[in-house]
Amino acid sequence: MKEMSGEHILMRIMLGESDKQDGKPTYQALIEMLRSEKISGATVLRGIAGYGAHSHPHTTNILRLSQDLPVIIEVVDSKENIERILPQIEQAIHGGLITMEKVQVIKYSDI
Amino acid sequence: MKEMSGEHILMRIMLGESDKQDGKPTYQALIEMLRSEKISGATVLRGIAGYGAHSHPHTTNILRLSQDLPVIIEVVDSKENIERILPQIEQAIHGGLITMEKVQVIKYSDI
Amino acid sequence: MKEMSGEHILMRIMLGESDKQDGKPTYQALIEMLRSEKISGATVLRGIAGYGAHSHPHTTNILRLSQDLPVIIEVVDSKENIERILPQIEQAIHGGLITMEKVQVIKYSDI
Repeated sequence: MKEMSGEHILMRIMLGESDKQDGKPTYQALIEMLRSEKISGATVLRGIAGYGAHSHPHTTNILRLSQDLPVIIEVVDSKENIERILPQIEQAIHGGLITMEKVQVIKYSDI
Repeated sequence: MKEMSGEHILMRIMLGESDKQDGKPTYQALIEMLRSEKISGATVLRGIAGYGAHSHPHTTNILRLSQDLPVIIEVVDSKENIERILPQIEQAIHGGLITMEKVQVIKYSDI
Repeated sequence: MKEMSGEHILMRIMLGESDKQDGKPTYQALIEMLRSEKISGATVLRGIAGYGAHSHPHTTNILRLSQDLPVIIEVVDSKENIERILPQIEQAIHGGLITMEKVQVIKYSDI
């Protein structure tokens, strides 16, 4: 069943796996928020290495990096829905990078 | 050796890791189809968490989610080649999301 | 603290996990180069399956594939910075695919 199609936004939130919010991983708190806000779907990818916005400032050696791996949360939904939940995301992350790009969605089905 | 360059399509297929087609994982069946159709390349990424099009409708708790992790298949090729194999992809997935976006390809080399 | 915003480039470099440069994994050498060139961040994702530019030409069976998994390095920075380091990347990879796309960056913060 096609439920949505046409132009949507792919939002990607990059943060650290060990980032915490109220005692739980920030990426998990974000997934729960996105689901409760009826955002149509989200996927969490974990990197095997990296540095940058998702790393703490003192992370300058490879060893430390391996203990704070980057995590990317990918969300696809309408521009309106993405904009609606953006303030909650910005509030949840304290270091991180958010990118947005337009994507063409050609199939969305539930079994 | 540069083999292709210029504007191409990045197609991303999001489905569940445990989705099956004829007894084998759907993502594996898709990779085999893409290869046999001479699509230039594909990468399968597995998420560590997620929900949405790739989850079964009854997947409402975290435990169940961990048993049906999201999988993203990424394919980069020409618009013509992507459109050619799209019907086979739509036939293979019974729940999932496909996104398309234009990307600039600047290097493609075989060793 | 917002450090950059507006339109940037998402560059994705696809190569093989087992590709080597001077005895070390190419993806690791690239991360070190990107960091030393003050590129703002990079994330390395490892695929669970795939074929294509990142596979060696003789990789035609699934078994072999599992020994040379695809790796994707994602880099977000300004067009100027990406263009500046591109020659070093092209020199480092001997088989691989680079894609570029415009993304809107809406938050970049250090803790």
